[in-house]
Amino acid sequence: MKGSLAKALFSPNAVALVGASGDAAKTTARPQRYLKKHGYGGTVFPVNPTRQEVLGEKAFASVSSLPQPVDHAYILTEHVEQALEDCGKRGVTVASVFGGGFADAGPRGLERQAKLVARARALGVRLLGPNSMGVIDVPGRLAVSVNAVLEMDALPAGTTSIVSQSGTMLGTLLSRGAARGLGFAKLVSVGNEADIGVGELVELLAGDPATRVILLFLETVRDAERLARAARAAHQAGKAVAVYKLGRSGLGEAAALSHTGALAGTDAALDAYFRDCGIVRVDMLETLLEIAPLLAGRVPPNLSRSGKVTVVTTTGGGAASVVDRLGLRGVELAAPIMDLTMAASGEGYGEALVKAAQTECDAVVACVGSSAQFHPQLAVDPIIQGPKTKPIVTFFTPQADRSLALAAAAGIAAFRTPEACADAVAGFLSWRSPRKPRALAAPISLPENPFALVEALGIPVAPWALAQAPDFAHRVAYPVALKRLEAHKTERRGVVLDVADHAQLVQSARALGQDRLLVQRMESGLAEAIVGYRDDPVVGPIVLVGAGGVMTEVYRDYVLRMAPVSEAEAAEMVEQVKGFAALRGYRNLPRGDVAAIARAVSALSRLALVEGRPVREAEINPLIVKAYGVVAVDALVAYGADKRQGAA
Amino acid sequence: MKGSLAKALFSPNAVALVGASGDAAKTTARPQRYLKKHGYGGTVFPVNPTRQEVLGEKAFASVSSLPQPVDHAYILTEHVEQALEDCGKRGVTVASVFGGGFADAGPRGLERQAKLVARARALGVRLLGPNSMGVIDVPGRLAVSVNAVLEMDALPAGTTSIVSQSGTMLGTLLSRGAARGLGFAKLVSVGNEADIGVGELVELLAGDPATRVILLFLETVRDAERLARAARAAHQAGKAVAVYKLGRSGLGEAAALSHTGALAGTDAALDAYFRDCGIVRVDMLETLLEIAPLLAGRVPPNLSRSGKVTVVTTTGGGAASVVDRLGLRGVELAAPIMDLTMAASGEGYGEALVKAAQTECDAVVACVGSSAQFHPQLAVDPIIQGPKTKPIVTFFTPQADRSLALAAAAGIAAFRTPEACADAVAGFLSWRSPRKPRALAAPISLPENPFALVEALGIPVAPWALAQAPDFAHRVAYPVALKRLEAHKTERRGVVLDVADHAQLVQSARALGQDRLLVQRMESGLAEAIVGYRDDPVVGPIVLVGAGGVMTEVYRDYVLRMAPVSEAEAAEMVEQVKGFAALRGYRNLPRGDVAAIARAVSALSRLALVEGRPVREAEINPLIVKAYGVVAVDALVAYGADKRQGAA
Repeated sequence: MKGSLAKALFSPNAVALVGASGDAAKTTARPQRYLKKHGYGGTVFPVNPTRQEVLGEKAFASVSSLPQPVDHAYILTEHVEQALEDCGKRGVTVASVFGGGFADAGPRGLERQAKLVARARALGVRLLGPNSMGVIDVPGRLAVSVNAVLEMDALPAGTTSIVSQSGTMLGTLLSRGAARGLGFAKLVSVGNEADIGVGELVELLAGDPATRVILLFLETVRDAERLARAARAAHQAGKAVAVYKLGRSGLGEAAALSHTGALAGTDAALDAYFRDCGIVRVDMLETLLEIAPLLAGRVPPNLSRSGKVTVVTTTGGGAASVVDRLGLRGVELAAPIMDLTMAASGEGYGEALVKAAQTECDAVVACVGSSAQFHPQLAVDPIIQGPKTKPIVTFFTPQADRSLALAAAAGIAAFRTPEACADAVAGFLSWRSPRKPRALAAPISLPENPFALVEALGIPVAPWALAQAPDFAHRVAYPVALKRLEAHKTERRGVVLDVADHAQLVQSARALGQDRLLVQRMESGLAEAIVGYRDDPVVGPIVLVGAGGVMTEVYRDYVLRMAPVSEAEAAEMVEQVKGFAALRGYRNLPRGDVAAIARAVSALSRLALVEGRPVREAEINPLIVKAYGVVAVDALVAYGADKRQGAA
Repeated sequence: MKGSLAKALFSPNAVALVGASGDAAKTTARPQRYLKKHGYGGTVFPVNPTRQEVLGEKAFASVSSLPQPVDHAYILTEHVEQALEDCGKRGVTVASVFGGGFADAGPRGLERQAKLVARARALGVRLLGPNSMGVIDVPGRLAVSVNAVLEMDALPAGTTSIVSQSGTMLGTLLSRGAARGLGFAKLVSVGNEADIGVGELVELLAGDPATRVILLFLETVRDAERLARAARAAHQAGKAVAVYKLGRSGLGEAAALSHTGALAGTDAALDAYFRDCGIVRVDMLETLLEIAPLLAGRVPPNLSRSGKVTVVTTTGGGAASVVDRLGLRGVELAAPIMDLTMAASGEGYGEALVKAAQTECDAVVACVGSSAQFHPQLAVDPIIQGPKTKPIVTFFTPQADRSLALAAAAGIAAFRTPEACADAVAGFLSWRSPRKPRALAAPISLPENPFALVEALGIPVAPWALAQAPDFAHRVAYPVALKRLEAHKTERRGVVLDVADHAQLVQSARALGQDRLLVQRMESGLAEAIVGYRDDPVVGPIVLVGAGGVMTEVYRDYVLRMAPVSEAEAAEMVEQVKGFAALRGYRNLPRGDVAAIARAVSALSRLALVEGRPVREAEINPLIVKAYGVVAVDALVAYGADKRQGAA
């Protein structure tokens, strides 16, 4: 791990605890106790202007008066600004800030935070937090944290590091892992990410020899570009990144919001983003822990088809409970379940695993019943000694703490529940390498008129013209549609369709009460599509394609990816839109030109490559799909950034 | 619990173990060991013709030679048929059969099973299994079972009983419950259900004073009508029934099938069935265990709106992980999350719970962070002493075994994962009382022609007539559609639309090459619907409604209920079809007569009330929906039962 920030964060020579309480029952007394309890080897300076000593150690009035340089200060007092000034004076490298009342506390807190960051930059002090529960390095015996999980006597050391936007959940993960024999390297509570963010921490962990897997507990994404770069760096370094992110439902989003003061992006955009970054997204909290051994030292399978598993089991019901769930996630069976209770031959578990690994599967799922509870070593040994040609994961059906610990010690991914097992397997099998960043395109001119823009991108547009009062002359062949010039008109007000001739056009134009109107040739086809581009304020440029009409929204039937996408990638997206089933020949309905939809998707997505990304949003709705070709009949474009407030 | 079957199953005076092995390492030696270990108070007779004694007890050559009457025999030998004969001779009430090789083993096994059942009936012996891991009564100290979970020294006694189609999963549930302080009453492995089925066992448990909650682990449903009656009896007795059922994905269905030899119903039909029975369906394995205290002693909330919760927490991230998941299940927040770490007042947990219960919520979710790990009593006490006006459930974020046990001992539903917590809350809030069985309707005549049938049910049909070659005369007003008479024509072959006059009709009729055709007035409307009825071979009569066209299948956008349904119930169904959004005025699109759709759904569903249920399937597709009224333009009907093979 490079640089003085990493050293100051995780291996400081000395730590100052600013506002350390002498009352052992107080939260602010904890870090001093925890540093001692867990064997920190450096110097700890309690800073408390009202006391001579704190918990038996000499106390100092301020950081600026400390007798030796300090690289890490944990600010526990409410007087954060003053403490920061003192840190600046003493040349502290990084100050972690425990207290809230910043971006987590409304517009005034946000203002306070902005001032704090500006001052820290001026002073050359890096900030972790505010609202941070601090930093733990288990093998390094560092515990600059208020997290009560540090009351535990022996923290399990390992090679999994965690970055969490929830301080308390860091303790949750550590305590659950400890009970399971899953060990940890570095754990960081990022708080409000006023300065040091998740992306920078993943960067540091990508360069940390003690870390093999990086787990993220996220409520939002505040620095998408940096996190994407960091994820690529982790991939380059042979390290896996997995994420559990809140805000999948609108309800949870509101909850995360009220807790962090951060605005969350839409969940579908985040799915596309994580996929693009090569980050495995898990659906369930415990999966985040349990998936680590499955990812450690492995590379993304990069499958271009559904994932396949083969299952070996001593309990039919147990296997079925995993397989049922895998099916809901689109994972298939490569071979029938190998149920050893059914096998007349009395074949051993080890032999069955070898056979299973020889099937055309991407992973083997090993289920074990009661023997995992009563004969842990016998149950786990065949799995530990099993074939190494395919990843093996295991689900123990009974309460089987010892088996779980044995598996963990051997680096075998073992799951407590069938659902987490399936979640991890599905996540692993859909894991892809990060996409390489695209080079900027040659500058194209970006006309203001949406149709002109769409044409400039190479997407066919129904012939159109602007017609002006009083005569509304134009050269488009009849029949035509007549449209008002304002943006989006999904409800079709201000639109007259099937205008047959010029007399009718003039009459309709007058009825619309506009002096200037858009005239466009009527088009018909087999179906409609919607193709959209958006520079998402959270994750950056995305492109989506869906079946047209109101059904896109009603059924949420669209596929979303980070932009730009190639034509091949766009074709994959088009393939996944259910509403295009008819265009693909469902029930012998006439086939439409799905390849042309993909070309349009790819073309529109290239807006992401325009320097400066001036387009905020562009949409073709509908794109008429014909047996041969597509044609845009309505479009909108909006320029200018839409950066969210509150995101630092 | 009434009757001698219950007594023989759960409280036998004497148990015969037929084929008990003298080799303690063998599975067939276990029941004798387990009965002794767990303190069975009656007499145990090992039956083994090749030995004088078995594991230190005198052995007998056959059941027929036993010195005293025996009410329960566990047949462990492969010579099941001979053992049954002997049981018959000795007047044994119930024989549990361990061995497989019956319905679980293909057509020949199925035949063997049918013969066994016939013989058992002739002998007056009731059968549990074959393929049964036996019966356990924890408070009664009975363990007539080979399940290895009985190696545990102390089984936890409680008031939750389990009926399982998977013998091994019975052990899984018992061992996981034991580790959590969740106790059990009676546990039964039903195996193939050749004679005694899940329904009959639920009946027995409904009458069992020691049982408060009945949990079902199902791979299929073999006796839907009896189980429905039993669930109603349980409800009458103030007992809750919850189910975890495999086969939600096609993949799992195949797995269950290969394991049990049983054919599973479609999952949507089973959802409707369980709802109708007042059975709470859970989505995750551990929820089945953890939900018991939430259901015990409670009645269904019978909500006619979305369920609402209020959340109290000491960890924002922990609360959000539950709330996020609840949102995915349609449960709403009644009030903002009460995060005590954010509260300036330092309000106590108990006070917060009281306030939470006073909000307009249906349940309170109490999340607890690290204190659940380090101060279990302090963490759990406020919840135990909390308000009783609303159900309280709790999620402990860290590893918190002691808190879980304290909660269990106090009868508080406590969850290990946010997902199971949300699953249970969502299941509880959608719990409804069983629907009363409907009286049979007055007989109606059931014409063979589908249109005539639909008309007879009171559903409007587009005017139609049969036209005959050579002149194809009819009285329907033009324009008309001309249709071949065979069933379902979704692909629209053999249909000529918009026939303008008689000359065109004769020409089209000749082109279709048919002497007899259906002529029907062309109808148009705002949308299409599909309304279907089916006498499902697993769960019985169901009715479904969906948006018409191929999208019903592509998006699986239909709502399914047990038939019959009232107009009010049908209106609820129609409300849930997403594709009818436009008809409900979405984006100011013209409104359609959704009430008329509901009337048609209710009318078609009344086929379930026709004596003998002669109709196997009936479908109106499409039903044209207008601004006022609906009209059927295509229909099919099929008569005769479609009972599945293999289901006993």
